[in-house]
Amino acid sequence: MSFDTVIRGGTIATAADVFTADLGVRDGRITAIAERLGDADTVIDATGRLVLPGGIDAHCHLDQPQAPGLAAKGARMADGFRSGSISAAFGGTTTIVPFCVQHRGESLAAAVADYHGRAEGNAVTDYAFHLIVSDPTPAVLGQELPALIRRGHTSLKVYMTYDAMRLSDRQILDVFETARQEKAVVLIHAENHEIIGWLAERLERAGRTRPHEHATSRPLPVEREATHRAVTLAEIAGVPLVVVHITGGEPLDEIRRARARGHVVIAETCPQYLVLTADDLDMPDLLGAKAMCSPPPRDWHAQAALWQGIEDGTIDVVNSDHAPYRFDAEGKLKAGPRAPFRAIANGIPGIETRLPILFSEGVVKGRIDLPRFVALTATNNAKLYGLHPRKGTIAVGSDADLVLWDPERRVTITNALLHHNVDYTPYEGLEVQGWPETVISRGEILVERGELKGSPGRGRFLVQEVSSAWKTREITAWI
Amino acid sequence: MSFDTVIRGGTIATAADVFTADLGVRDGRITAIAERLGDADTVIDATGRLVLPGGIDAHCHLDQPQAPGLAAKGARMADGFRSGSISAAFGGTTTIVPFCVQHRGESLAAAVADYHGRAEGNAVTDYAFHLIVSDPTPAVLGQELPALIRRGHTSLKVYMTYDAMRLSDRQILDVFETARQEKAVVLIHAENHEIIGWLAERLERAGRTRPHEHATSRPLPVEREATHRAVTLAEIAGVPLVVVHITGGEPLDEIRRARARGHVVIAETCPQYLVLTADDLDMPDLLGAKAMCSPPPRDWHAQAALWQGIEDGTIDVVNSDHAPYRFDAEGKLKAGPRAPFRAIANGIPGIETRLPILFSEGVVKGRIDLPRFVALTATNNAKLYGLHPRKGTIAVGSDADLVLWDPERRVTITNALLHHNVDYTPYEGLEVQGWPETVISRGEILVERGELKGSPGRGRFLVQEVSSAWKTREITAWI
Amino acid sequence: MSFDTVIRGGTIATAADVFTADLGVRDGRITAIAERLGDADTVIDATGRLVLPGGIDAHCHLDQPQAPGLAAKGARMADGFRSGSISAAFGGTTTIVPFCVQHRGESLAAAVADYHGRAEGNAVTDYAFHLIVSDPTPAVLGQELPALIRRGHTSLKVYMTYDAMRLSDRQILDVFETARQEKAVVLIHAENHEIIGWLAERLERAGRTRPHEHATSRPLPVEREATHRAVTLAEIAGVPLVVVHITGGEPLDEIRRARARGHVVIAETCPQYLVLTADDLDMPDLLGAKAMCSPPPRDWHAQAALWQGIEDGTIDVVNSDHAPYRFDAEGKLKAGPRAPFRAIANGIPGIETRLPILFSEGVVKGRIDLPRFVALTATNNAKLYGLHPRKGTIAVGSDADLVLWDPERRVTITNALLHHNVDYTPYEGLEVQGWPETVISRGEILVERGELKGSPGRGRFLVQEVSSAWKTREITAWI
Amino acid sequence: MSFDTVIRGGTIATAADVFTADLGVRDGRITAIAERLGDADTVIDATGRLVLPGGIDAHCHLDQPQAPGLAAKGARMADGFRSGSISAAFGGTTTIVPFCVQHRGESLAAAVADYHGRAEGNAVTDYAFHLIVSDPTPAVLGQELPALIRRGHTSLKVYMTYDAMRLSDRQILDVFETARQEKAVVLIHAENHEIIGWLAERLERAGRTRPHEHATSRPLPVEREATHRAVTLAEIAGVPLVVVHITGGEPLDEIRRARARGHVVIAETCPQYLVLTADDLDMPDLLGAKAMCSPPPRDWHAQAALWQGIEDGTIDVVNSDHAPYRFDAEGKLKAGPRAPFRAIANGIPGIETRLPILFSEGVVKGRIDLPRFVALTATNNAKLYGLHPRKGTIAVGSDADLVLWDPERRVTITNALLHHNVDYTPYEGLEVQGWPETVISRGEILVERGELKGSPGRGRFLVQEVSSAWKTREITAWI
Repeated sequence: MSFDTVIRGGTIATAADVFTADLGVRDGRITAIAERLGDADTVIDATGRLVLPGGIDAHCHLDQPQAPGLAAKGARMADGFRSGSISAAFGGTTTIVPFCVQHRGESLAAAVADYHGRAEGNAVTDYAFHLIVSDPTPAVLGQELPALIRRGHTSLKVYMTYDAMRLSDRQILDVFETARQEKAVVLIHAENHEIIGWLAERLERAGRTRPHEHATSRPLPVEREATHRAVTLAEIAGVPLVVVHITGGEPLDEIRRARARGHVVIAETCPQYLVLTADDLDMPDLLGAKAMCSPPPRDWHAQAALWQGIEDGTIDVVNSDHAPYRFDAEGKLKAGPRAPFRAIANGIPGIETRLPILFSEGVVKGRIDLPRFVALTATNNAKLYGLHPRKGTIAVGSDADLVLWDPERRVTITNALLHHNVDYTPYEGLEVQGWPETVISRGEILVERGELKGSPGRGRFLVQEVSSAWKTREITAWI
Repeated sequence: MSFDTVIRGGTIATAADVFTADLGVRDGRITAIAERLGDADTVIDATGRLVLPGGIDAHCHLDQPQAPGLAAKGARMADGFRSGSISAAFGGTTTIVPFCVQHRGESLAAAVADYHGRAEGNAVTDYAFHLIVSDPTPAVLGQELPALIRRGHTSLKVYMTYDAMRLSDRQILDVFETARQEKAVVLIHAENHEIIGWLAERLERAGRTRPHEHATSRPLPVEREATHRAVTLAEIAGVPLVVVHITGGEPLDEIRRARARGHVVIAETCPQYLVLTADDLDMPDLLGAKAMCSPPPRDWHAQAALWQGIEDGTIDVVNSDHAPYRFDAEGKLKAGPRAPFRAIANGIPGIETRLPILFSEGVVKGRIDLPRFVALTATNNAKLYGLHPRKGTIAVGSDADLVLWDPERRVTITNALLHHNVDYTPYEGLEVQGWPETVISRGEILVERGELKGSPGRGRFLVQEVSSAWKTREITAWI
Repeated sequence: MSFDTVIRGGTIATAADVFTADLGVRDGRITAIAERLGDADTVIDATGRLVLPGGIDAHCHLDQPQAPGLAAKGARMADGFRSGSISAAFGGTTTIVPFCVQHRGESLAAAVADYHGRAEGNAVTDYAFHLIVSDPTPAVLGQELPALIRRGHTSLKVYMTYDAMRLSDRQILDVFETARQEKAVVLIHAENHEIIGWLAERLERAGRTRPHEHATSRPLPVEREATHRAVTLAEIAGVPLVVVHITGGEPLDEIRRARARGHVVIAETCPQYLVLTADDLDMPDLLGAKAMCSPPPRDWHAQAALWQGIEDGTIDVVNSDHAPYRFDAEGKLKAGPRAPFRAIANGIPGIETRLPILFSEGVVKGRIDLPRFVALTATNNAKLYGLHPRKGTIAVGSDADLVLWDPERRVTITNALLHHNVDYTPYEGLEVQGWPETVISRGEILVERGELKGSPGRGRFLVQEVSSAWKTREITAWI
Repeated sequence: MSFDTVIRGGTIATAADVFTADLGVRDGRITAIAERLGDADTVIDATGRLVLPGGIDAHCHLDQPQAPGLAAKGARMADGFRSGSISAAFGGTTTIVPFCVQHRGESLAAAVADYHGRAEGNAVTDYAFHLIVSDPTPAVLGQELPALIRRGHTSLKVYMTYDAMRLSDRQILDVFETARQEKAVVLIHAENHEIIGWLAERLERAGRTRPHEHATSRPLPVEREATHRAVTLAEIAGVPLVVVHITGGEPLDEIRRARARGHVVIAETCPQYLVLTADDLDMPDLLGAKAMCSPPPRDWHAQAALWQGIEDGTIDVVNSDHAPYRFDAEGKLKAGPRAPFRAIANGIPGIETRLPILFSEGVVKGRIDLPRFVALTATNNAKLYGLHPRKGTIAVGSDADLVLWDPERRVTITNALLHHNVDYTPYEGLEVQGWPETVISRGEILVERGELKGSPGRGRFLVQEVSSAWKTREITAWI
């Protein structure tokens, strides 16, 4: 056996096991795991380090073009595939799945072609695309989408809110029908659009326009309602459903209830809902805007419910929902320093901090063990989005996407440490324990002790297989 | 003490008690309840009879004008205030609350004026109007509705389905806001419009158009979803909510959950959901159309869940949802004898059979006691819709609206027995025990041993007080 | 019509209605309710007063003999039928149902005979006896108990804790079997005896012996466990069950779950669980012992859950659990001023304060309406324990047991105001609004403006009919 | 790298992954997993085979001595460590954890010493012992048990039923207290002893003594009650709890509720509850006795609930509860051919059929995937009982306990095929797909194509580490 690289003596963790061994890599794949492997061109000493599957961030927004009508007034995303994937890599993530968005009146196939152009030559990590369907015309549903799914875009996303993207219940059913026919998996952003609009209007009318009213305008019942409606639509159409960025116990209970009725529902949360609260939106001036995302962070009670969901298996994946809006005139402050909350771009950065925060708050604080950490951040995403076993695990035959993790290193997060193109982090000052030291993609070192080694453009597009969600049990439609 | 009428020796039942006494009536009101009252002009022997408060049917459709666009093609309601109130009276009901409907683009005040015209000179029983709001313009919400509520129309109704009447979530919130300001109570028809349309379209496309597909197109999850959404909207706006015609355990559980979260929700079911099932829609030719109503009857499991809800107090009122479409070319068959289910008018008659069916299936079969029967059919409706203590009970000072009920009489229901203007009953052949013998309104005999004694036009309009739903506890809005 | 007494112009409340009328009484019974009755020997002006059915306190301990072995060391009950019924009457209660206890090794029939002796000549109110079965021998179950039930003792009580009285699960099933055969209703004190003993021993061992550790030794899970076990036993044997003195949401949820499984379970709470908390046990010296009862009061969260249960109908009756131990060397301090919590007699007085507290906290604070207050304190108890319609309501033919209630009077509760023979009240200093002014039993004035008018010994023993719990639906046993 | 054995080209499955690779074994442990390993003394071709971690059967009874008083009349266990471990091996199981039982009045340490004697020289697989505590005296709890736990017996078992073994609630708390101090994990048999006895007595009295009345005497509420009580005791004492042989949805819901309250509860079921029903006890003559175990199998509804629990992660482990009683005069028929159900030994064999049944019903029928199968049958048991990573997985450093599994082979189970010493199988005639072909323990072939290769006595005793149940989160006791 000969190897290009041997990683020696690390403590390897998978979603099942933790053990100490050498890892041998050839041609970018793991070809051997053994007590002791011979030398190779490159030998990396991993003594005292965890060797984890590279993280998969399956919920992030990069270089997402805005809806034509909004382009003039909207905030621009500060990260494209280049800075976004570099930031991901520095945070221990080796695969990203951002969203390719179809705008109303546009072709989905064209959007995909365009998005490929944005990725090529830029990404340092491998990537796939979820497809946001915002205009499910017969042509899109009948021709473009089936062709795209068969070409490996097996995950779609739909929105229940946002003027530019939201679908009606009926349109969602239409998308689900195509998803069922082609065995795609659908992610859904579940908030009741009309309640939000109604509350926001009343808040504005009352002059309550500061950032923290963003949270007031999108209370937990808004998310609970939409989650229940979404799983009902999935139940009618007969499709598995991924409910993204769940923020508290009430929507989580809707997931539990749907599963008890026999449906396949997958639950995601994000670090911001585990460590931030609505109080973080209530800062002087517009500083609260830095924690403004949708749905909004809640309170400690909601955080406890999410941890309970993580511990008892209700929550399957933790992703970042990285939305790279700067805190300047290009970004959150575009509408001006006195802008009411509705004019401020929604979304916060987090692609680089996801793994350190979950490791520190979860593993170090004794809430989850290492295999569960690996499952939540890598393996489950890989299975759910048709990338396993190529990605998301440490096994013979899998891509050598690896993180050498220093479990003892204590870091105080500051934006100066990070590599995204956003000018702030909502976690400024948060101390974490555990940090990625060396990050490897297909056997190549991307990041080593704080230095970027991988070249933009080396990242490859990944063709997704059918999701594991379609394999666990037979899913029946109502008719 | 002198009386116009004395009812002697009956077994009087209220929502609390059952006891034997004489009842004295003067000027249309109950002025005495005593062991033995002296004689009067009229003495009615009630020995061996139950003396119950006259039923209140707070969910019935009479002479409801169709939306202008639908007038040409839609089925006509066969019962107006005359035949409808006569049929009600023969069934033991002495107060009716049909719906005054505002059509889109029309004035609600004008609709009320028009509806008063339809009632006057026709009704034999007293009546009030629920107001259906289908076009909540600023003028309607800001001026017409507050004025109407203050004039005694304290109950409104909104629809989540039906093209001509449904409101968006946001419009529902707008109506709730006015209801909150004016302390009106809102009834809601809770079914998800878009799922129904989507399923119906697919059924039609597959050639599945017979009446029983009506049930397939409106499955229980459609009602569960809309019920949860409706209570969430009520929770946001801070109003009590009446969810009408609940058909099974799943929507009932949504009511239970909402109450456990601390909200005021009132639940109604109807006799058709207690004795019919979806199988009744699956009859040869179009006969199944005779049991076609929305939501549709379900199965025995749903019936059991409803009885459980009646027994444990989750269900507060039982009304008829009388919708008088004939089974002829004016009614259900208007679209022709081969019409697909979507073209057939929805709704079934039942204003006259409500009390006998609930008495027979409930009291005689030992599921509920007499006080609960009275509460479900009269007292709770009276309290809920601001008619108590004038209506809905037997107490000194209350209107002498009474039914002398023969608890032993066995009757096989046939349409020939009934007094509505509909040419069929969905309960043809159903044997019941217990039947109203003498029916009295404000001390006047309306019906006596099968003969009508009351004159059309004697019925009076009732000004509704504020609903008891606003009085049970403080209701807070989200903002 | 002629009357012994006419109560003129009061606002009468039943479990269903509230209305203004005159009440006519003859031979101790209500014989007329009318707008205006003629004069009588006695005319009581009730203008501005509520006229309520006299309260029924179906959970109180009076002159209860101690188990032989405990007599020497145990605390003595300070109230017998005389002071107990007088105190009840002053509090608006006109019927009491204390417990006749069988001690181990004793005859139940003999205990009943003895208890009749204690009541006769002493009671000013009418009374019935629940029978505590603590030694269910074949003779007791097979002969004594059936004979006693047939003689009108249709309600039994069993304990799951207390060394002197507790039954094993199997003995409870044996009692249930007899109850099923004879259609008796069974009350149960549900706490897990062994957990309590285990915790108490550990607390003692750790020197934690102050009164508030009483609450630590009987946490809510102890009650939740026993409640679930009790309803399971009832489900197996096929009997309705009354779970007494429920203290919080967890045991209440067990009741709800049992009902959802189709079982007949009745729920009781007491004022102490609505207004006291465990903090009241944590007072300097032994003062906390004044709030020491079993189960113990919990916290505001539990109080909120109980109010929710009262509002949504889960809780059926509110009784006092009056346990008249003095705070002196005859009572709670018998074991000495430094006695550890386990040596202090459990139970607190409350027979006179029950109605004022529930009226003030419930009706005045807008949580319940008058009919619900009447149902909780009188009507439901009467139905449940086979005393209706003789007791518990205001209806023609019922005993004229009435309270003229001043709804506006504000009273600060102090022990000096009360008429029990206990030297303290746990509610010292509590301000309430609403107070009984005149109390009438079978037409005779018992209490009038603070003066006792009824003579000890006038109270009569009441033969109980079969409970309404046996009538609501068919109850099946497991085999 | 040199190996004693190489397993070439198999499809390896862990609790996380499925991939194709060669496995290298040296000195009984897995030392390499690689695309291609060089040759070795022994090369096993695994092409077309699954390579699974050897099963761990952590719930089986072997050579369990009877309580002294019962020895004369009770059935004898037909399998000791020799035939039991051989049967296990043939079924793909390479680690067994039978029960070492302490009888009342006996020393636990002596029982362990005795049980070691029974295992030594007999076992072909490795083994550990759970310790059944039936007499928790101060000496046992204070001295013997702590010493034994520290010597590697970190799992205990207690019974809530069976005269010879059951503990009172208080004794269970005592055992839990020691378990908490020493970080042992406790398994519990949860059925309410007194209800069972009461029902059985009534069945006997009614002459209902055939085997299927065994199920009537232990209905699901008996298990639901005891499960809730058991988790409450664990909650009070602050210990994780393993509820074994769960048979249906009601006890499973108790587990879910306990977890939602924040407690660590582990759930086990067995193949018999997934494929048998109570109808299997209702066979002519005494044949039904062949399916008689405790708790009894239920119905298809319960089976569906268990599968739901397996799919949604509520159930953690599937073990056999092998109880080797023959169907002859030494075993089930000892009390004679007309013996009533209470005289017949409880328990059925299944150590050899566990994996094939779960594979066939679970994996082949599409209910679970391979990683979940591995988790349920091996990995989770290993973690739970302190044997991981030595046992229960395929990872570098782990023992080479492996099964080469033929996923296509169809087998009709008959007792002639099996290797236990029991003269029947309750699964006679059941067709399964998937069968173990080659079974390896610490690198040695135990079974190859139907032939035993391992020698009795080669099996080693395993010292258990502390259970993973103590590591997932902080567990607090009530006091």
